[in-house]
Amino acid sequence: MTETEHLCDIAVIGLGVMGRNLALNLNDRGYKVVAGDAFPDVVVSARAELEPTVTVVDTPIDVLKHLKAPRTMLVMIKAGDPVDALIETFRPHLQPGDILIDGGNSHYHDTERRQALLEADGVRFVGLGVSGGEEGARHGPALMAGGDPDAVAAVSAPLAAIAAKAGDGAPCFGTFGPGGAGHFVKMAHNGIEYLVMQALAECYLLLSGPAGLEREAMAETFRRWDETAASSYLLEITAVVVDEVDTDTGRPLVEMIKDSAHHKGTGRWTVEAGLQYGVAVPGIATAFLARALSSRRAPHAASLRRLPPAGDAALIADDL
Amino acid sequence: MTETEHLCDIAVIGLGVMGRNLALNLNDRGYKVVAGDAFPDVVVSARAELEPTVTVVDTPIDVLKHLKAPRTMLVMIKAGDPVDALIETFRPHLQPGDILIDGGNSHYHDTERRQALLEADGVRFVGLGVSGGEEGARHGPALMAGGDPDAVAAVSAPLAAIAAKAGDGAPCFGTFGPGGAGHFVKMAHNGIEYLVMQALAECYLLLSGPAGLEREAMAETFRRWDETAASSYLLEITAVVVDEVDTDTGRPLVEMIKDSAHHKGTGRWTVEAGLQYGVAVPGIATAFLARALSSRRAPHAASLRRLPPAGDAALIADDL
Amino acid sequence: MTETEHLCDIAVIGLGVMGRNLALNLNDRGYKVVAGDAFPDVVVSARAELEPTVTVVDTPIDVLKHLKAPRTMLVMIKAGDPVDALIETFRPHLQPGDILIDGGNSHYHDTERRQALLEADGVRFVGLGVSGGEEGARHGPALMAGGDPDAVAAVSAPLAAIAAKAGDGAPCFGTFGPGGAGHFVKMAHNGIEYLVMQALAECYLLLSGPAGLEREAMAETFRRWDETAASSYLLEITAVVVDEVDTDTGRPLVEMIKDSAHHKGTGRWTVEAGLQYGVAVPGIATAFLARALSSRRAPHAASLRRLPPAGDAALIADDL
Amino acid sequence: MTETEHLCDIAVIGLGVMGRNLALNLNDRGYKVVAGDAFPDVVVSARAELEPTVTVVDTPIDVLKHLKAPRTMLVMIKAGDPVDALIETFRPHLQPGDILIDGGNSHYHDTERRQALLEADGVRFVGLGVSGGEEGARHGPALMAGGDPDAVAAVSAPLAAIAAKAGDGAPCFGTFGPGGAGHFVKMAHNGIEYLVMQALAECYLLLSGPAGLEREAMAETFRRWDETAASSYLLEITAVVVDEVDTDTGRPLVEMIKDSAHHKGTGRWTVEAGLQYGVAVPGIATAFLARALSSRRAPHAASLRRLPPAGDAALIADDL
Repeated sequence: MTETEHLCDIAVIGLGVMGRNLALNLNDRGYKVVAGDAFPDVVVSARAELEPTVTVVDTPIDVLKHLKAPRTMLVMIKAGDPVDALIETFRPHLQPGDILIDGGNSHYHDTERRQALLEADGVRFVGLGVSGGEEGARHGPALMAGGDPDAVAAVSAPLAAIAAKAGDGAPCFGTFGPGGAGHFVKMAHNGIEYLVMQALAECYLLLSGPAGLEREAMAETFRRWDETAASSYLLEITAVVVDEVDTDTGRPLVEMIKDSAHHKGTGRWTVEAGLQYGVAVPGIATAFLARALSSRRAPHAASLRRLPPAGDAALIADDL
Repeated sequence: MTETEHLCDIAVIGLGVMGRNLALNLNDRGYKVVAGDAFPDVVVSARAELEPTVTVVDTPIDVLKHLKAPRTMLVMIKAGDPVDALIETFRPHLQPGDILIDGGNSHYHDTERRQALLEADGVRFVGLGVSGGEEGARHGPALMAGGDPDAVAAVSAPLAAIAAKAGDGAPCFGTFGPGGAGHFVKMAHNGIEYLVMQALAECYLLLSGPAGLEREAMAETFRRWDETAASSYLLEITAVVVDEVDTDTGRPLVEMIKDSAHHKGTGRWTVEAGLQYGVAVPGIATAFLARALSSRRAPHAASLRRLPPAGDAALIADDL
Repeated sequence: MTETEHLCDIAVIGLGVMGRNLALNLNDRGYKVVAGDAFPDVVVSARAELEPTVTVVDTPIDVLKHLKAPRTMLVMIKAGDPVDALIETFRPHLQPGDILIDGGNSHYHDTERRQALLEADGVRFVGLGVSGGEEGARHGPALMAGGDPDAVAAVSAPLAAIAAKAGDGAPCFGTFGPGGAGHFVKMAHNGIEYLVMQALAECYLLLSGPAGLEREAMAETFRRWDETAASSYLLEITAVVVDEVDTDTGRPLVEMIKDSAHHKGTGRWTVEAGLQYGVAVPGIATAFLARALSSRRAPHAASLRRLPPAGDAALIADDL
Repeated sequence: MTETEHLCDIAVIGLGVMGRNLALNLNDRGYKVVAGDAFPDVVVSARAELEPTVTVVDTPIDVLKHLKAPRTMLVMIKAGDPVDALIETFRPHLQPGDILIDGGNSHYHDTERRQALLEADGVRFVGLGVSGGEEGARHGPALMAGGDPDAVAAVSAPLAAIAAKAGDGAPCFGTFGPGGAGHFVKMAHNGIEYLVMQALAECYLLLSGPAGLEREAMAETFRRWDETAASSYLLEITAVVVDEVDTDTGRPLVEMIKDSAHHKGTGRWTVEAGLQYGVAVPGIATAFLARALSSRRAPHAASLRRLPPAGDAALIADDL
């Protein structure tokens, strides 16, 4: 028995719920998995959940010695600086042919920059859009890969294996050409979610205001609509959310939630891509800017006063 | 055997495909149906399809003598003037307690006006939003009723019977208070469709332009997205549509379709309702106006010329 | 000396500041003016200001006996129901050929309805857009007339006389065809003001937030911009407004004003006209809906709570 | 007489019309100017226009030996790569204390990057927004400076001298703190122009379509509006433009101009800044995206066909 027989097929780095579920999914499909995380407490809890099925090592860099060549690592960590930091840590230890797959919500520009950086070392970098949430990660995500065709081909087997399967059995794994195409496609995808949420918000306002629907009628209406051509996953879960009651006050839960929306970037990036390439994206821009406006609302000081009617600035226009 | 035993439970007026399917749906649920249409050729073809299950009479007004009191009529004709014309024809023949249900895409303002008009005669008028298309009409539409509570209650049994059933068996039949509430809710519902279509159009442009996706990859991407939180009925059918090939040219079908969108009113009415009631509907407004812009594009005369660079009006702003 | 010699050339009905100033302007141009108002206290104060130059009568209807035939009346009262009420009061007393000019901010649809109503009596109704504010009314407004060509021609002399004069001496008095064209043009004009104000608001946010400009630098910047191609009347007065200090707090006045904008209709009507005629007006729609959103902001109850991070609805989209 | 007496106070690099006019403006204010350009033919024509008042040298780098220390250079060349190229050429020859002023339409991000680069050499870099066009450059531009406070102070005298003077005699020269603040402010300024132009375009459509105004009435209306609160410089010149007649066809010139608008960047940057800093700029975004949409319109192939009515995709939504 040689040492190679003990080596793993693939590593998962970053053991939040997405990483853990993808590790288990890979294991289910017959891939031998090693996993690591930079945070000791995450390692402890991941070990409790994953071992002995998946080998959990103490630090990310430790996965390297457990992997068959070419070493393939699926990175599931927070997008942005942490990815660059991880690359800097790994670079001195990587060999030509090794493959890093970034499965986070990275900007496609960053993906292209990182590909160029690692290409100089002969290391292959694949940008992978992962969609479907925690459940998807565990039992079948939608995967969108972009990068060097050779690298994408090299990781197609495990990615196709863990992906969701369409009605005809085809894996929900798409390859979108070189560069950051996988992350670009995943990003554009989120633009749809922004607009559907904007649509639901606007309809909520129309139904609660002018139509005067109360909580139960609102929920019922959204459930009905989900049987029509307006049907969508987000409408389905919205019907559930608007039906919730705040246990403390007995009021509808949505009235108790601060109406200030945040974002993590993909919607903004989609609009920026539209601006950069001259693609008209007025709907996604409108939805993003509505969020920006909502999150800006500073609480007004108690001293904030309304000018007397004679100075009502808001009415001036119609008098001019 | 009295004459009353032969009388029908409900009439369907307007025998286009929606009306015919609703008549058959009512018949399936045990309601005895009489049906009529103002157009003789429609009567002929409806008779061939519906009789003997459904009694088809020669003109709309003829349904009256076949109905039990209070006479209940479901009107499925083109929204707008035809509904007013039909009401004018029927008014002299209606009796207090009779019920007219308008199942067309009527404006909620019109519904409220007609209710007030008929109320003076003691006739009850229900505005009914019907969603689900032809298939829904035949096997289970989503129904949204508004009007006098007593009138809505009187027609709830047949409407609940023919409506689609949710997972828990509850009928997709909602009642939304007095006036035009049913048509208002149906109208707002269409606002979602406008925004989802706008989202799909914007993503199509991002994927076909900057991301360079061809027909098959585009369709594949949309199919993948339908496995994620962006999933919607319109995304599902869009994945099918973008995969179609134009048989004459071999080009993707969507490239061969004139990019000029029309509308039949509900999207515009939704924005107008937002304007009237001061509800911010920037997303639906953006989607509607994008359609307005697309349909406006006049074909430019061949003589249309571009000014020489020195007069490039479009660039002036950045020089100022 | 016959009685006719004592009769007036034109009446002004409605003696708010606009009506009083137009009456004085007409008098300056050699027209003999009679004026009335429905509110006794307004009559008292108007009498003090206008007599003996202008004859002030006790009620609107009293102007009739002071006018030469055909009797011409410029109505400067609040748009909407008051105009209809005044017409109902006057109708029994008007004679064929009499002319009513509505100089208020009426909807062009209303103007066309009123024209049709009065046409049956042979009475002529002109819809007049008046722009330029109080100063303009006194020394030269911009006037936009629409209505029956014969009626518009009959009132062109006094209207051209009181209108502002362009650089070449031509009067700022335009005639825009039949129906409500004058009010339509005035309405569209206000759309510009909505968008310029939206532009100024957006720039204010960019300069006060990211660029960190304080009150004085902001005012200085706006003054500088008014020397460029971005120059406009509204920019000019905004430069003054943003420089104001709240005397109670010493803070910039604009920070003390509730950021909730109202409107009196013309902006909304402009968007509705765009929707009705299929004209793309996304900019004016955006500006109007931004106002709608600002005025909707209900003060949140003190009990309003923010969900704990785990339930941060706003971030869900980017995780999906 | 020492050599220093012959040295110049300031250099202008880039002798397009803006650079030439600023050079003459500086000379008028008592500054001794040396000027250069990278293109020999530009040097020839500039020499003909500017000498002997202004010393014109053969290449940009030649200005260095004609300048007093600290050497101050106003760069008026095309924004983007040319500025970086010029900096690379100059860097080896610059000394601590030298000052480069970039008066082009540079992105404020680029300005901040260049400041950081040159700071390492002790060279000071000022980002200067210049507004007012050719006329302004010659007789008084509006100037917006940002950069190291010491550097900005060092160039305030000549910049204040050449700037336009407000009514109270104050120079239209603003300093906006460190970094790219000057270019940021100039950029935001252009957002106003985008929105005013969008407003004018939307009003043009409302007046030419629904209101049916022809060329002369349109021009007249815009001239009238310029006497009201909607007054702006862009409205004033639009009134002139819409009155022009195409000499070949006799049609209004605006109908002959291809309705496809381009841009040079500042509008896009303004929206991007809004996205980046979370500032709601829906109006400017709408205006920019309307341009993007207009410029995208590909001429449709002659073979482009409209689907038969049965397949009218555009109408599907209202039927669902």
